Amino acid sequence: MPTGPHPLRRLQHPPSIKVRFMTVTPDNIPGDPRFFVTQGPFELADLARCSGAELRAAKDGGEARRFTGIAPLQSATRAQVSFLDNRRYLPLLEGTDAGAVIVAPAFADKVPAHAAVLVSRAPYQAWARIAALFYPAPPVAPGIHPTAVIGAGCEIDPTAAIGAFAVLGERVRVGAGVDIGTHVSIGAGVEIGARCRIGAHVAISHALLGERVTLLPGARIGQDGFGFAVTPEGFENVPQLGRVILEDGVEIGANSTVDRGSIRDTVIGAGSRLDNLVQIGHNARLGRCCIVVSQAGISGSTELGDFVTVAAQAGLIGHIKIGAKARIGAQCGVMSDVDAGADVIGSPAMPFREFFRNVAFLRRMARKTTQDGGGEKADKA
Amino acid sequence: MPTGPHPLRRLQHPPSIKVRFMTVTPDNIPGDPRFFVTQGPFELADLARCSGAELRAAKDGGEARRFTGIAPLQSATRAQVSFLDNRRYLPLLEGTDAGAVIVAPAFADKVPAHAAVLVSRAPYQAWARIAALFYPAPPVAPGIHPTAVIGAGCEIDPTAAIGAFAVLGERVRVGAGVDIGTHVSIGAGVEIGARCRIGAHVAISHALLGERVTLLPGARIGQDGFGFAVTPEGFENVPQLGRVILEDGVEIGANSTVDRGSIRDTVIGAGSRLDNLVQIGHNARLGRCCIVVSQAGISGSTELGDFVTVAAQAGLIGHIKIGAKARIGAQCGVMSDVDAGADVIGSPAMPFREFFRNVAFLRRMARKTTQDGGGEKADKA
Amino acid sequence: MPTGPHPLRRLQHPPSIKVRFMTVTPDNIPGDPRFFVTQGPFELADLARCSGAELRAAKDGGEARRFTGIAPLQSATRAQVSFLDNRRYLPLLEGTDAGAVIVAPAFADKVPAHAAVLVSRAPYQAWARIAALFYPAPPVAPGIHPTAVIGAGCEIDPTAAIGAFAVLGERVRVGAGVDIGTHVSIGAGVEIGARCRIGAHVAISHALLGERVTLLPGARIGQDGFGFAVTPEGFENVPQLGRVILEDGVEIGANSTVDRGSIRDTVIGAGSRLDNLVQIGHNARLGRCCIVVSQAGISGSTELGDFVTVAAQAGLIGHIKIGAKARIGAQCGVMSDVDAGADVIGSPAMPFREFFRNVAFLRRMARKTTQDGGGEKADKA
Repeated sequence: MPTGPHPLRRLQHPPSIKVRFMTVTPDNIPGDPRFFVTQGPFELADLARCSGAELRAAKDGGEARRFTGIAPLQSATRAQVSFLDNRRYLPLLEGTDAGAVIVAPAFADKVPAHAAVLVSRAPYQAWARIAALFYPAPPVAPGIHPTAVIGAGCEIDPTAAIGAFAVLGERVRVGAGVDIGTHVSIGAGVEIGARCRIGAHVAISHALLGERVTLLPGARIGQDGFGFAVTPEGFENVPQLGRVILEDGVEIGANSTVDRGSIRDTVIGAGSRLDNLVQIGHNARLGRCCIVVSQAGISGSTELGDFVTVAAQAGLIGHIKIGAKARIGAQCGVMSDVDAGADVIGSPAMPFREFFRNVAFLRRMARKTTQDGGGEKADKA
Repeated sequence: MPTGPHPLRRLQHPPSIKVRFMTVTPDNIPGDPRFFVTQGPFELADLARCSGAELRAAKDGGEARRFTGIAPLQSATRAQVSFLDNRRYLPLLEGTDAGAVIVAPAFADKVPAHAAVLVSRAPYQAWARIAALFYPAPPVAPGIHPTAVIGAGCEIDPTAAIGAFAVLGERVRVGAGVDIGTHVSIGAGVEIGARCRIGAHVAISHALLGERVTLLPGARIGQDGFGFAVTPEGFENVPQLGRVILEDGVEIGANSTVDRGSIRDTVIGAGSRLDNLVQIGHNARLGRCCIVVSQAGISGSTELGDFVTVAAQAGLIGHIKIGAKARIGAQCGVMSDVDAGADVIGSPAMPFREFFRNVAFLRRMARKTTQDGGGEKADKA
Repeated sequence: MPTGPHPLRRLQHPPSIKVRFMTVTPDNIPGDPRFFVTQGPFELADLARCSGAELRAAKDGGEARRFTGIAPLQSATRAQVSFLDNRRYLPLLEGTDAGAVIVAPAFADKVPAHAAVLVSRAPYQAWARIAALFYPAPPVAPGIHPTAVIGAGCEIDPTAAIGAFAVLGERVRVGAGVDIGTHVSIGAGVEIGARCRIGAHVAISHALLGERVTLLPGARIGQDGFGFAVTPEGFENVPQLGRVILEDGVEIGANSTVDRGSIRDTVIGAGSRLDNLVQIGHNARLGRCCIVVSQAGISGSTELGDFVTVAAQAGLIGHIKIGAKARIGAQCGVMSDVDAGADVIGSPAMPFREFFRNVAFLRRMARKTTQDGGGEKADKA
């Protein structure tokens, strides 16, 4: 809510920041070898096999090539693979120098003659697989860093990796292939299924994690929920006696927070993805494959069905139910139940269609009334 | 702000996530012994004494029972205590198997005949106390972990606990019974009153904490506020020379941030509760027993009276005053002072009544105008 | 979204929190010696020189004084310097006891007769410099803490400081005068330019930092972006193969998150300032000297020109462009491109003028319709 004039507007000339930036080399994008391990080169047949795409030779009959990596359409070279997933970027496709392009069937004949075509009904997924072929995730290096502090009674699979300064309380169980980062704090009794990846500075307590759960740096799982009784002497804590259950394949973004339940569990269903800075209140339950975009918040005891999407900065009040496949728009404020499959937006939430109708109506009417004059001045809030 | 079709809608069948989840045992809820220490069993008289509730024997004259724990109405057994705080769950009360139920006087005669009744005018508080009787907070284990780094001149009470890899700068004072978690970073000169609980990964600098302050994991207290002068050469930092004062009994949620003052202190009044991911700007002052729900933000130099509630995702501009007992609704955008006792919501903030009147009016008018036809098409933003 | 009555309203009397706060000494504000190092005293001529202000002797002809510090107008003494930057505080100027006051030329003759006047066209900047003269930032103490873990091939300038329990992966480069806090986690290959300040618990990976970059505690830089393909078997990760580039002079607030790019870089332009709890999605690009206030979020692939301001809790959808010097209001929801220099607010975003016109129109019409009666009752959402 800016109130004064923009301070930058006072400047006659823009600030003269000097950039002495030495190390940025744009030609290393994507896949800067400082940060990523590269595999390859690969033949076209390798790319088709790994991605499940159908291979069509370049129209100009160019020989089979070897590919060294991936790149966006506008910068790819003959030795690189690119892809088109969005009709909006069609003009870039026509001008690309990429040696091969992944496309949906509808665009296959738009690919330039010099390029091989990898036709896929799921081009984004094919792209993901080819990218992972060239730039595989680094393998987990098993072993417990000598600085880690491991509590009594822990069971740690010998194929798991535990990073520097990690602290595991008593009786923690860590499955096969798990990768626990530096400075991670895991409370007593926590169980972590196979192939989980726990980022730096994550704190977990009172929680059970399935397999292939990923927690990005700074996520907080299992702390006390926001529960207290109001008394004449102030607020009195209500013991939070539930757990957090993160089912298989859940991913939780950086600095997100998931409180443990008070009297039942807080549950994130299998395959669900939470972005950064998301808040999940105590006793909340998300179904399978839900998507919660960054800075959204789900209040205590609210339940989401399967495949629900909650867009960025949306907020859901407590104790409501959101039906399967519902879609909650960005910044939406949801105060009551939402039907399965419904699209809502606005604060308070309403159907998409109604929201945009209201917006258009209000603009038209306010403009008209003001133009009609009538001496009424807009009184600012 | 979703723009395209919901990606999940493209799927003919929902994803087939396999859940191989091995360790979840729902019968351990609440109070899973992996995570909670249990006390008991207790007699009915113990429960009445600890909670201050009035005891009424079961109508069916069943003998005195011994209780082993607590549970929700729908899953409680004869050896467990349950409670009703919300009229909405009355149907569950009638069907419960709980051996005893805590209720407000108005519901006492709705309790099934087999169950003892604990009648309380503050049933939620009575519940909190009985829950804490069965599942007491684990005691603080005094001592400094051998990996902790303690600066010169620190004064640490011998009854305090300092966790693994904690770092205390010079001259830090730690009171009796304080519990400092793993990986906590405390800057030089910070003072921490008796019985504070500091969660894992908390960072504190330039701050004074009263007694019984609780900071959940990842809270950031006392860092530089967002203050700089705009100059022709860019932005120039203004030294932030105040402190953060957290008075007695304050609680601050996971990953919340409280900036220190620039020229005066940032103060959180006694007993106030901040949820997760809350932002408090420099020089802000909260009165006693304020509640700030998750993802809300209070800008610099704004002042809240006592007992103010700020609901989730609300935002308060800087340099304004919120009167005592005011209530700021979720997602509210407050741009100017709010009177004591007022209820506001909306962005910009307005009285509750006005907000909902506007919402209803707009819906009705937009619908009517569209139905009337008139050839006007909703023009989308 | 509060639904029930305010719990505090049930109380006849406000909670009786006892405050046993022992250590707060208001007379130490600003510049409590527990937390800040003081320099001085200084002569008026020193203050004028360091700030670039023009010096005018006190009208009452008082002798040259020596100054020991700074203070707000209302508490400053004859040995302290104060300042006025905002017309709203003029009444305080007239009553101040400060021995010297920094003011803009327009207010120079309002300074009381006993006080010297430091006249500056940039009084806030002059204040910043005088404050920094009295309370200089503590110098960096070069050296690597013995507990830090340093990977193979790191190049660390001998003038840099590395804090306790910091972990640097392989081949990390750290420039001259850099200050790395406790518990910092830096991934392999990261480069950190001269005089950067990295706060406690920061995690950095896949990133290149220019000179004088400041990261406040808990910031997360370079983790995986939120990118995945929807498949019949669930969500499949798309490798995130870009980097994060933080140009010279960038500052990022506590617990903010900046995801690395997927196929290009995420770039924060030179001099830009991000407040606490800000989210920056993958591939986003901010120009020079942008300001992003707390809890705002910028979605993937969105681009900001130079000198853009994004106010608190605003959200920008992905794949849009914001022109230079545009100003996005608090809680604004931006769904499409914004022109250079434009001021927008509301959700969806619209020009400031239109937003407040709509607000005023709706209030007037809803009130009028309700007063007219017509038997229509506001139907609550």
